[in-house]
Amino acid sequence: MSKKVALGIDFGSSSVRVLTLDIESGKVLNSVEQSYSGGVDGVYVSDSDSLLARQSPADYLKSLETALEKSVAENKKAGIEMSSVAGIGIDATGSTPIPVTKDMVPLASTDKFKDNLNAYSWMWKDHISHKEAEAITAKAGEMRQQYLGKIGGAYSSEWYWAKLWHCLNVDKEVFDAAYTWVEFSDFVPAVLTGVKDAADLKRNVCAAGHKALYSDEWGGYPDNEFLSALDPGLVKVAETLPKEVLSIEHNAGGLCKEWADKFGMKEGIPIAMGVMDAHAGGIGSGIKEGSLVKIIGTSTCDLVLGDLNMKNTNILGVAGVVKESVLPGYYGIEAGQSAVGDILNWYITNVLDNNKSHKELTDKAREQKPGQSGLLALDWNNGNRNVLTDPMLTGLILGQTLQTKDFEIYRALIEATAFGAMRIIEELENQGVVINEIVNCGGITHKNDLFMQIYADVINKPMKIAAIDETVALGSALMGAHAAYKADGVEISYNELQAKSCSVLEKVYEPNPEAVEVYRKLYENYKKLHDEFGVKGTKLELYGVMKELIEIKNQIS
Amino acid sequence: MSKKVALGIDFGSSSVRVLTLDIESGKVLNSVEQSYSGGVDGVYVSDSDSLLARQSPADYLKSLETALEKSVAENKKAGIEMSSVAGIGIDATGSTPIPVTKDMVPLASTDKFKDNLNAYSWMWKDHISHKEAEAITAKAGEMRQQYLGKIGGAYSSEWYWAKLWHCLNVDKEVFDAAYTWVEFSDFVPAVLTGVKDAADLKRNVCAAGHKALYSDEWGGYPDNEFLSALDPGLVKVAETLPKEVLSIEHNAGGLCKEWADKFGMKEGIPIAMGVMDAHAGGIGSGIKEGSLVKIIGTSTCDLVLGDLNMKNTNILGVAGVVKESVLPGYYGIEAGQSAVGDILNWYITNVLDNNKSHKELTDKAREQKPGQSGLLALDWNNGNRNVLTDPMLTGLILGQTLQTKDFEIYRALIEATAFGAMRIIEELENQGVVINEIVNCGGITHKNDLFMQIYADVINKPMKIAAIDETVALGSALMGAHAAYKADGVEISYNELQAKSCSVLEKVYEPNPEAVEVYRKLYENYKKLHDEFGVKGTKLELYGVMKELIEIKNQIS
Repeated sequence: MSKKVALGIDFGSSSVRVLTLDIESGKVLNSVEQSYSGGVDGVYVSDSDSLLARQSPADYLKSLETALEKSVAENKKAGIEMSSVAGIGIDATGSTPIPVTKDMVPLASTDKFKDNLNAYSWMWKDHISHKEAEAITAKAGEMRQQYLGKIGGAYSSEWYWAKLWHCLNVDKEVFDAAYTWVEFSDFVPAVLTGVKDAADLKRNVCAAGHKALYSDEWGGYPDNEFLSALDPGLVKVAETLPKEVLSIEHNAGGLCKEWADKFGMKEGIPIAMGVMDAHAGGIGSGIKEGSLVKIIGTSTCDLVLGDLNMKNTNILGVAGVVKESVLPGYYGIEAGQSAVGDILNWYITNVLDNNKSHKELTDKAREQKPGQSGLLALDWNNGNRNVLTDPMLTGLILGQTLQTKDFEIYRALIEATAFGAMRIIEELENQGVVINEIVNCGGITHKNDLFMQIYADVINKPMKIAAIDETVALGSALMGAHAAYKADGVEISYNELQAKSCSVLEKVYEPNPEAVEVYRKLYENYKKLHDEFGVKGTKLELYGVMKELIEIKNQIS
Repeated sequence: MSKKVALGIDFGSSSVRVLTLDIESGKVLNSVEQSYSGGVDGVYVSDSDSLLARQSPADYLKSLETALEKSVAENKKAGIEMSSVAGIGIDATGSTPIPVTKDMVPLASTDKFKDNLNAYSWMWKDHISHKEAEAITAKAGEMRQQYLGKIGGAYSSEWYWAKLWHCLNVDKEVFDAAYTWVEFSDFVPAVLTGVKDAADLKRNVCAAGHKALYSDEWGGYPDNEFLSALDPGLVKVAETLPKEVLSIEHNAGGLCKEWADKFGMKEGIPIAMGVMDAHAGGIGSGIKEGSLVKIIGTSTCDLVLGDLNMKNTNILGVAGVVKESVLPGYYGIEAGQSAVGDILNWYITNVLDNNKSHKELTDKAREQKPGQSGLLALDWNNGNRNVLTDPMLTGLILGQTLQTKDFEIYRALIEATAFGAMRIIEELENQGVVINEIVNCGGITHKNDLFMQIYADVINKPMKIAAIDETVALGSALMGAHAAYKADGVEISYNELQAKSCSVLEKVYEPNPEAVEVYRKLYENYKKLHDEFGVKGTKLELYGVMKELIEIKNQIS
């Protein structure tokens, strides 16, 4: 019999990945990927509202089938039978709620709603519900101050209740047709475990805690009085939600016969409770106490673990502080930036029309010194997730002269995302969160040395890089392995599993003192713009900003 | 014998044009052009200082020779002998001072200085002297408040004394080697009239008044006490300047034998006093009392005539109020924007790497409605000439999302220049300057209907377009014709000459009320950015700017 393996299934923004892990050695055996087929890169957008971003649940499952077929083929080549799969972990983007019927059919798969994007999956980056988010923040401020303490002070348009409420406001037919709304990271485990009644749905603490205001401290999800104050219609959904939600210590269930047979796996092998993709990335990057893991992709998620005894669990300017949302035994503190890779891709695709590549621009930008372009940008092309939690903000770039070059703008955009990252770290540290090391993961951290050096210089800390590209799928596979051990009656900690599978590259990006000094000055100006455009009531004098940038530039050239 | 013609010689930023005008009918017979050969598009720039822009005086004359050869050929085709040229008018960019020896050799043409850009012609758009300009403004504020009244409140880095003083500060060898510094618009007439001693140089009121602080009110150029307070070294140059400067009622002299023979013209035919190119453009566009002429090119110059009896000749935020700098019998009021076409060219060349054309971007941008992109930009990529007179300002664009397209940025840049134009008009009207009509000239006014419609909608006035492309060269030709009439003993007014030659296109761009309404809102936000970044001591709240742009955008789409 071949060795026991775990599968990590990672549903990203535009594709699903399946990673096979050798459970005993902790080695990654292979990893395959399948892009979603619908919309633009898997995303359905609207010409009339740039804030909308939807996906098709059927597309998720079809893509998973294709990915699993690829996985079967890869494993076969290596002499591994799918019957040796002993556990499965699943992560998905979030908050990405999907409206489903009582018998677990996504509304988007029904004839009635197949052409209605409101019946689709409401992708994490859909910001259409910003007015509802503001209203939730306001109402919580009046009635349930404690809610705000756990979500950094403001509810986001990216999150569960804002999205449901927006649907109720704009498309009551869809809202009424849905029995409940299930997070993407609970939907797939439910399908794979064969849940046929949405009343039986298990929900994971990661999505529930970070996106849907679930907390032990107030006995679960928001109470009906609060939801009624928003809109009585929401109570109907609340009544479908479980009293308790589960961490990755627990299983969603066993693999159902249908999916097991289709790919030659054993029926009933354990499937761990899901998590959101970034959190899986934290696990796969070897997150431990004191390490900040930055999952850098189209957007960025920052994860830090907090001691369960920590005094202040109300941290301002973060996306959430949730018990056991990452690893059992710790608070998971999540923050993030709503666009990072997306901004660079936007510049290349929408502005430069793909006439230049990331590599070409990076090669030119690498020759420049910090401050040499005279440019300064804000990283708000998709709003600001943290520390402002405001989707109604937009990009800004200043300092252009008639000599400004394309690659200088590219570099300024990278720098803007680094300043945004720094703003979050500063905010965390100011509130007593301990950060001893920073581990970065995501494709760009392996591909773009300039990007990582700028981060080291702006943040003024060494930047470590998770050794493998697929830390998110690895995190899910570790969840699958953990479930497999448990099924065998073996208690093993996540830290032990991580020790076998997670490592950082030898190359660590160290801050360069000269660059640090220049970026410190630029960052002060970034903060001025940040507060002036992003913080209500701010009235700074910005007269000197352009002049200081010219001065810095002239000192350098 | 063939009919009598006048030549208009127009030295622009990158080429010289020669236009032949039938004096009696006022019809343009032909027009030829020759690009300068040196540097980049005729301009020598510096890698280490983006503010520097120099040209070669020898290049000017060599290009003029080639242009005149082309003119000879064109005229010959039409059966016109060059001996029928009866008068010549000349315009050139300014303030573009050229250091020359006492025997009229440009320092750049001497062996010693041929590789030293400080010995070249200091082009109007050279902003390297910004510190000297600030110091001149400050000193005038202390000692000669009256100087500031005539130049809109601040001396510019683009102007004569700032440039000379900067040369004195950074390259004393060049400064000491120069007997005097002559404006481009006086240099060429001097060469063509055969001036061999720089002490005999005549100077035109247009450049002297707008750029070198010349005014009847204080008896000419700045006095030695003032210049000594800046730097005693400047007095040496002041002593080479004439007591009186001349308007285009006067001649620079007669065509010298050398140039006459070379092109088959008659020796001694009158050459009018020079003017700066924009002012010639005003004349060629048919400027009269109450009309604002906008000469729109790489930069933009706005000209209005003021009654000689007007009460307030101290107008804030303009580039100058100078008696008879445009037409005899009127004050010439000049304002302008330091980059207009240059900003669009910069975007296409430096950002898009010429992968899209003006036409492609315009065609896409034309399909958009005002406010639809959510973008807002400042037109300061080359600083701000008016109303702020501050070269140490830079470009800004905000409102970018991940959906923003290349052509939307292009449109936002056009709009930014229109807002800049509006800011000047508002300032003029606030100070009692009467504007009954706006006549636009320059290549872009004929080529880009979207540009003109945006101007009509932003400024909320009809936009007329001068019928011919070469209004600047036409203006010079009218000066040549005027000199020819005078030589024949005929007194004729410029308005009579203009009536024969100047007309506007039938197509007038009328403001569209819906667009006017949206642009009014955008302009309010433009002004907030303008004041916050450009006016010292301003502390506005900008928190709402991005949100209002999103709101406007959402209302439209």
